[in-house]
Amino acid sequence: MPEISSKGKNMPESPIRKLAPYADIAKKKGHKVYHLNIGQPDIKTPEVAIAAIKNIDLNIIEYSPSAGYESYRKKLAQFYQRQNVNVNKEDIIITTGGSEALLFALATITDPGDEIIIPEPFYANYNAFSASTGATVVPVISSIETGFALPSIASFEKLITPKTKAILICNPGNPTGYLYSESEILQLADLVKKHDLYLIADEVYREFTYDGDIHYSVMNLKGIEQNVIMVDSVSKRYSMCGARIGCLISKNKDVIATVMKFAQARLSPPTVEQIACEAAIDTPQSYFDEVISEYRGRRDTLITELNKIEGVIVTKPKGAFYCIAQLPIDNADDFAQWLLESYDYNGETVMIAPAAGFYSTPGMGLNQVRIAYVLNKEDLIRAVTVLKEALLAYNAKK
Amino acid sequence: MPEISSKGKNMPESPIRKLAPYADIAKKKGHKVYHLNIGQPDIKTPEVAIAAIKNIDLNIIEYSPSAGYESYRKKLAQFYQRQNVNVNKEDIIITTGGSEALLFALATITDPGDEIIIPEPFYANYNAFSASTGATVVPVISSIETGFALPSIASFEKLITPKTKAILICNPGNPTGYLYSESEILQLADLVKKHDLYLIADEVYREFTYDGDIHYSVMNLKGIEQNVIMVDSVSKRYSMCGARIGCLISKNKDVIATVMKFAQARLSPPTVEQIACEAAIDTPQSYFDEVISEYRGRRDTLITELNKIEGVIVTKPKGAFYCIAQLPIDNADDFAQWLLESYDYNGETVMIAPAAGFYSTPGMGLNQVRIAYVLNKEDLIRAVTVLKEALLAYNAKK
Ligand SMILES: Cc1ncc(COP(=O)(O)O)c(C=O)c1O
Ligand SMILES: Cc1ncc(COP(=O)(O)O)c(C=O)c1O
Repeated sequence: MPEISSKGKNMPESPIRKLAPYADIAKKKGHKVYHLNIGQPDIKTPEVAIAAIKNIDLNIIEYSPSAGYESYRKKLAQFYQRQNVNVNKEDIIITTGGSEALLFALATITDPGDEIIIPEPFYANYNAFSASTGATVVPVISSIETGFALPSIASFEKLITPKTKAILICNPGNPTGYLYSESEILQLADLVKKHDLYLIADEVYREFTYDGDIHYSVMNLKGIEQNVIMVDSVSKRYSMCGARIGCLISKNKDVIATVMKFAQARLSPPTVEQIACEAAIDTPQSYFDEVISEYRGRRDTLITELNKIEGVIVTKPKGAFYCIAQLPIDNADDFAQWLLESYDYNGETVMIAPAAGFYSTPGMGLNQVRIAYVLNKEDLIRAVTVLKEALLAYNAKK
Repeated sequence: MPEISSKGKNMPESPIRKLAPYADIAKKKGHKVYHLNIGQPDIKTPEVAIAAIKNIDLNIIEYSPSAGYESYRKKLAQFYQRQNVNVNKEDIIITTGGSEALLFALATITDPGDEIIIPEPFYANYNAFSASTGATVVPVISSIETGFALPSIASFEKLITPKTKAILICNPGNPTGYLYSESEILQLADLVKKHDLYLIADEVYREFTYDGDIHYSVMNLKGIEQNVIMVDSVSKRYSMCGARIGCLISKNKDVIATVMKFAQARLSPPTVEQIACEAAIDTPQSYFDEVISEYRGRRDTLITELNKIEGVIVTKPKGAFYCIAQLPIDNADDFAQWLLESYDYNGETVMIAPAAGFYSTPGMGLNQVRIAYVLNKEDLIRAVTVLKEALLAYNAKK
C-alpha cells in the first residue's frame, strides 16, 4: 500500500472536529447539546443576497474571471472606500473564502521552512494552512490577564530570524475577541517596516465591534503599503459562510500578480455565490445595526453569566463573537469530551472548544476553552447554567 | 520591499491567459474573435440545476460539512453505481472543483521533491498544482502519430525512481482528446501495483466519448483499490464550470482521512452550488444524448475542416472536446499572438492555445496548438476558414 506524504500525516486535525464523535454520542442519548463551539452564526443572510440567488438570470453557470467578476471587485472597493478604507479594484482578488486568501497569502510569501510570527491563541486553521504550504508558525504568547492585547514589540523582535517572512494578526481576534487599537497596529507597522516583513491581517470579523470602537484596518497604514496583505470574507459579515467568497487585498503589485497565478490555476471562485455577494453589498445599514446590537447583547449576557461561576476567568471581548474563558479545571480536552460523553443537566449539555488547539506552544491553554456566542440570549443563559453545574459535578467526581 | 517566495516566482502562468492581452487588442480593433482556446462550453446547464438555485429554500447560507452534504454524496454514489462504477458515499469527498481535488490528491501523497509521472501533453494546470504543492512533474511523451495513445509501459518504468509517488492520467484527455482503452488502464494498474505507486485519474470528461466507446474508470480496477484516486467535477458534465464543485474518490481510507484534514482546514465547498449539483443528478438522459450528439457533430466538422488545410496533422479525438493539431509553422506561440495582434480575415480572427504550455519537456509541441470545439458547427467552419487563410498569410510574410 503506497504511503501518505509527511505533509499529509502532519496536517493538524481541527480541534473542534475531534469532538464531533462525542457530540454524536450525546445526541444518541437524546441530550440537547448547546453548541458554543462553532463559528457558524444563526443570523439570517441579508434578503438582497438571497433574492439575487432566487432571481439568478443564467442559462450557463460559467467560470467567472479568476480574480472574480470585475463588477463585484468594483463594488467591493466602493464598499471599503465608504468606510474610509483605502482599496481599489486592482488591489482585490476574490477568493474561495477567506480560507483560500490565507492559503494564497502564505504560498505567495513563504517557502517551506520560512517563519510566520502569530500572536497566540490564534484561529486553529492557521496551523493547517501553514502545514499545507510548508511555513512554520512561530507563536508569540498573548495572555488572558491583558485580555489578549498585543504582546510587547520586544517579544516579537526576539523571535525574528532571517527566515521570518511575516507577522500574521487576526483583528478582531478569533478566538480572543480582542480588537487591536490603532496604536497597536501602528507599532506593528513600524516593526514590519524595520525588518522588511509582510503584515498579514485577517479582518474577517471587521464589522463585529461592540463598544463604539472603530476597527482600524491595516489598509489604512501609510508608508508600508508594499508590506501589507489584508484577508477578508463575506462569511461572517453577511452570515454567508457557505458562499465561500472572500478576498485578498494588497497594494503590492508583485503580491497581486503572484496571487493571480495561484488564482488562475484553480480557475475561479464560485459564480452564483459571487453574484449573491455583489448584491449583498447593498445590504441596508439597519441590518448591521440589528446584528451588532444582537451580538452586543449576547456578549454582555454571556460574560455576566460566566462571571457568576466561581473560578472562571474571562474578559469582555471587544469584537468578533468569541471569548476565551479559563475554567477551574486542569484539562479542558478531557472536560469537553466528558460533557458530551458522560454528562447532562436535565437532559442538556454543552459543546465547547478546548483552547489548546488555538495555541501552538505545547502546554498552553490547557484550562481554557473558547466560547462562541452564536446562540440567542435565552439559550446562552441556559448553556452557561449547564456549564456551571457541570463544573461542580466534574470537580466533585475527582 | 519584502520578497515574493520562490514558490510564487516559479508558479507557471497559464499558457492561455498569457494571450489575453492580445485578444483585447483584437477586440479593440473591432475584430470578431473565435475562441477555440477555452474549456468553457457554450452548452446550457440542465434546467433542474438552475431551478434548484431559483427555488433555494435557505434563510442562512451556512457552511456545509467539509466533505460535502451527505445527501449529495449519497446521490453521487448512486449516480456512479448506475454506471457500474464502484463508489460508495464514504469514498467521496466533495471539493471546490476538480481543481481542488487535484491539489488535495497531490498534497496527500507527495512531499516537496517527490515525483509524479504524467503522459504529456497534459492539462497545463498540473504544472501549477505541482509547483504549488512542491511535487515534480516527470513527463512521459505521448505522440501525435499514435493519436496520443498510452506510451509504452517500458517508457514509464524507465522514469520510476525512489521519489516517484504516482502516475497521473487524464481520461479522456485534455488537451489530446484521447480515450484510454480498458487494456491500457489495466497495464497501468499492473505497473502501479508492481511499484506500489498511486494511480490518479482525472476523469472530469468521463461523459464525453463519441464513438460508442465505454469510458473505463479506474474505480473499476480490481486488486489495486488502495492505489487508486479518482478526480471528477460537474464543470463539464453539466456545463456548470462556475459551480466549483468536484470530488475526490478513493477506497483507500488513509487517503480519505488525510484529504479530510485538508478539506476541514478550508471549511467547506460552496453551499448553494452543491444543492444545485445534487439536483443536477436528476438530469434526464436526453440532455446527455443531445450534448454528446452535438459535440460529436462538432468534432466531425472540426476534423473534416482541419484536414482540408495543407500541412495540418490532426487525429480524430475519441473523447473530451479538444484536439491537438500540428500546423505548418515553427512557433505556435508567435503565430497565436500574431493572429490576435496583427491578423484578420474579413474582420475575423481566431484564438488558439499554443500547445507548448501543455508539455513540460522544453521544445516539445512548438508547432502544435490545442483547439477546443466549444463553438457551434457554423462558427467552427468559419473559424477554420480563418485559420486556413491565416496560415497562408503568416507563411507568405516570412
Ligand atoms: C479568523 C478566521 N479567519 C478566517 C476564517 C475563514 O473563513 P471563510 O473561509 O469562511 O471566509 C475564519 C472562519 O471561521 C475565521 O474565524
Ligand atoms: C483535465 C482537466 N482537469 C481538471 C479541470 C478542472 O476543472 P474544475 O476545477 O472546473 O472542476 C479541468 C478544467 O478545464 C480540466 O480540463
